[in-house]
Amino acid sequence: MAIAKNQGFEIHALSFDYGQKHACELKYARFNARKFKAEEHRIVKLDRKFFLNSALTDKNIEVKKGSYSEKEIPLTYVPARNTVFLSYALAYVETIKAEHIFIGVNSIDYSGYPDCRPEFISAYEKMANLALKEVVEKKMKIIIETPLMFLTKSEIIIIGKKLGIDYSKTISCYDPVDGKACGHCDSCLLRKRGFEGSGYKDETVYV
Amino acid sequence: MAIAKNQGFEIHALSFDYGQKHACELKYARFNARKFKAEEHRIVKLDRKFFLNSALTDKNIEVKKGSYSEKEIPLTYVPARNTVFLSYALAYVETIKAEHIFIGVNSIDYSGYPDCRPEFISAYEKMANLALKEVVEKKMKIIIETPLMFLTKSEIIIIGKKLGIDYSKTISCYDPVDGKACGHCDSCLLRKRGFEGSGYKDETVYV
Repeated sequence: MAIAKNQGFEIHALSFDYGQKHACELKYARFNARKFKAEEHRIVKLDRKFFLNSALTDKNIEVKKGSYSEKEIPLTYVPARNTVFLSYALAYVETIKAEHIFIGVNSIDYSGYPDCRPEFISAYEKMANLALKEVVEKKMKIIIETPLMFLTKSEIIIIGKKLGIDYSKTISCYDPVDGKACGHCDSCLLRKRGFEGSGYKDETVYV
Repeated sequence: MAIAKNQGFEIHALSFDYGQKHACELKYARFNARKFKAEEHRIVKLDRKFFLNSALTDKNIEVKKGSYSEKEIPLTYVPARNTVFLSYALAYVETIKAEHIFIGVNSIDYSGYPDCRPEFISAYEKMANLALKEVVEKKMKIIIETPLMFLTKSEIIIIGKKLGIDYSKTISCYDPVDGKACGHCDSCLLRKRGFEGSGYKDETVYV
């Protein structure tokens, strides 16, 4: 959002409540949408039944402490999550006549989710440009922007700091307690290493 | 659903409540899911705000009586509707380990919706096969089945009758009153002409 704002875009922010254990991220999203003067911030409630079978959502599957190996897709993968997120974004942009959809996916220092890879995003964009009335009538074209795709976590943190992000008001943790990061899950470890390489102090609020 | 059942598939049915004026279709969907012995029938409630700006959902936009010209995409188009429907289906199939998604889109005798065309479905399928963990791990492959795509409405009706469909228990109308078809909207006219060409009596319940 900070990057889009810095590039001069008007912000219409979208967050999702899908039963994630880290639903506290929605509170931080609300804070940052205000901070970066979003025109609107919608929080969409998804049907939770569809997004179970993941350590991110299912109370019966524990979030692993420690890192995942590079070869496995972790238990924190949520079925078709980014596909559903982007599909709501498509309905949104067609209604407000926007063209650019920003999504913070990253394929470096990440957890191996298939729906974060450039080939997925590119296939999604192709599909999107066949799906919408406004697009078929050549009144608009969908561009999916992934400014974080090829950055390391350290590079992301550095850019964020330059654009005014307060990282005590964001959360990456998969298993937070009272809105505070656990410090030990895969996502916390990736973020910690990112801070170490960035030269910035880790502002994350840990339990 | 009747075709999938006839081909020997186990049925996991999916319907959507998105604020459509013809929400009575959900009652008929429930009836037919039982009749064709679906293992499960989920009705997903979508966030209605995203699907306004259409005569199908918006009280302030009237459903036109009469046919649309072949060149225009009608006001009854709903932003990104089938994209969102299919995305929920993707989350669903990955969870239950299914591979075949049936969708009743049709590109003959239809209303010109971009998300009913074969090029859209084909692009969606390509994207889907990059999106899911089970697919990337080569445990499954997504196949989007569109058995009605190239059939005329008359041909669809004939097949339905042979498979035991009771058309008094289905509705196509965009603007029904008390669960009964208006008889005058674009969708009713297409269906009427379909019955005329099929040799079957029109069983539709009209107001």
